Amino acid sequence: MYNTQILRKNLQKRGVILLISLFSLNVFAFDAGGDSHTTVVNPLATKTSGGSQKPDLITNMDELMARQPNPNVNVNGVGIYVYDGMFSLDALGPYQVFKSAGLKTFLIAKNKGTVTMSNGLTLAVNKSIAEVSKLDVLLIPGGAGATAMQTIDPEVLDWIKKIDETSIYTTSVCTGAWILGATGLLQGKDASTHWYRANEMLTKYGAEYTGKRWTVDGKYWTSAGVTGGVDMALALVNHLFGKQYTQAVMLDMEYDPKPPVQGGSPKKSDPIIAQLMKDMYDFFLINFVNCPLGTPGACLFN
Amino acid sequence: MYNTQILRKNLQKRGVILLISLFSLNVFAFDAGGDSHTTVVNPLATKTSGGSQKPDLITNMDELMARQPNPNVNVNGVGIYVYDGMFSLDALGPYQVFKSAGLKTFLIAKNKGTVTMSNGLTLAVNKSIAEVSKLDVLLIPGGAGATAMQTIDPEVLDWIKKIDETSIYTTSVCTGAWILGATGLLQGKDASTHWYRANEMLTKYGAEYTGKRWTVDGKYWTSAGVTGGVDMALALVNHLFGKQYTQAVMLDMEYDPKPPVQGGSPKKSDPIIAQLMKDMYDFFLINFVNCPLGTPGACLFN
Repeated sequence: MYNTQILRKNLQKRGVILLISLFSLNVFAFDAGGDSHTTVVNPLATKTSGGSQKPDLITNMDELMARQPNPNVNVNGVGIYVYDGMFSLDALGPYQVFKSAGLKTFLIAKNKGTVTMSNGLTLAVNKSIAEVSKLDVLLIPGGAGATAMQTIDPEVLDWIKKIDETSIYTTSVCTGAWILGATGLLQGKDASTHWYRANEMLTKYGAEYTGKRWTVDGKYWTSAGVTGGVDMALALVNHLFGKQYTQAVMLDMEYDPKPPVQGGSPKKSDPIIAQLMKDMYDFFLINFVNCPLGTPGACLFN
Repeated sequence: MYNTQILRKNLQKRGVILLISLFSLNVFAFDAGGDSHTTVVNPLATKTSGGSQKPDLITNMDELMARQPNPNVNVNGVGIYVYDGMFSLDALGPYQVFKSAGLKTFLIAKNKGTVTMSNGLTLAVNKSIAEVSKLDVLLIPGGAGATAMQTIDPEVLDWIKKIDETSIYTTSVCTGAWILGATGLLQGKDASTHWYRANEMLTKYGAEYTGKRWTVDGKYWTSAGVTGGVDMALALVNHLFGKQYTQAVMLDMEYDPKPPVQGGSPKKSDPIIAQLMKDMYDFFLINFVNCPLGTPGACLFN
């Protein structure tokens, strides 16, 4: 770990500030495995002191440094707001993209401790909203009923509005736009969200549904459902650091998607399947959809 | 929760066995939000007893039931093996796909408790390998150095071989193929893996790199790096339940990917960026790549 820090400092001095996170992913991986295999020498120890044995590596490191992206906007902290019942990939897809891109990225919940996602998995969360008063980037993930509940939680809405006062980018994924909409911040804006009754929901919040994979309106970035967050996060990386750096992140994740069948949007799906999915969501959410803005919580599901 | 169980049983009796998981995602979301909002009535209570108020809904539910997929193969348990330092989306992308598809899906670690991924996030894990002796589907995610360490852990390799004896599908994502390869199970097989020195790594394990997004060779399914796991998991859902059901899962996740720039594979990327990424991985992994098969751990990183 000590050697890792020395390497990190040296590289930073020489200009590799951003790609280092891609290194640190690997460094972490070594550290994690190291505890139970103490005979394994830290690879960084030999590399940092033995660079002269590998001149080609040094050459390439210099080459790498020459490619340091010049950010269009300096972003120092990406906070992802998380809550019980959220959709896992809404938060964790963008989290991985931002982390791979070297951005300081962390989860924030109403109360720190743990959050259990809609798929039943539980994540540790180390920051509470009370501890965070400023973020360069805020991202709000979506969900179903749990997200509807967030839209009527004044403490959450007030915190988002406070963060938005000084944020550089305020963003949402999927039905996270419902929460963002409930703060009033999408009023008069174009936006994306999950396809389910997207027009009705965004109209309620004074926004216009674009149907795009992600929408940028001023500092507000919003994406389509669930997996749309990965594309939006990569688009933000592209906006900040340019195409080559985005390609580096995409290579790290081998992001060259090939869905096995056509689909993923109502228009690309069998109309019967799209209708059934809408009906299924209606079964749980239609009362919330029809609930006038500002109605107390008891309206939502009765 | 009681009402949820009644609904679940009724629906199962009437034939909606698989799509119910898409319901349960939403049900969970309601439950999760419910604790702090006790005035909200469980929506299922009114829905199950008041179905006659919504004849169109009933019609569609019947329609939905008629669409129940007839699985080609019955799969009762999907186990995802997880470990410290693994890449998050390798495991959590497929996890979400399988869960949305209604498959009983869970995480398994060497020891239960928590696992901290390469991106620093910590997940709760409720099953240990000692507790699991049979799985219909096993999935092994990848990583970097931590994955290399897994390839020399005899306890892990023995467990995988034992599971493989009765599994219906044995699968890996990304460099999870290194672990699968180290068990000997990929000998003579075609396989996919992360693009990084894929030929060299798979050749070492007696397998042939296809370069495909995912590869099926008998019961062995292997995918390209990180995000390749989502496509492979959807392909498995398609294999089990057919196109319409896969479209339902893809709609749930709005999986209609649109990467913001061309890239995601070395061939689609700027050659300089692809070379730099390879050099960067080499910096940490080349000694492992060059390490002959069966060499003790101390070889890996010296």
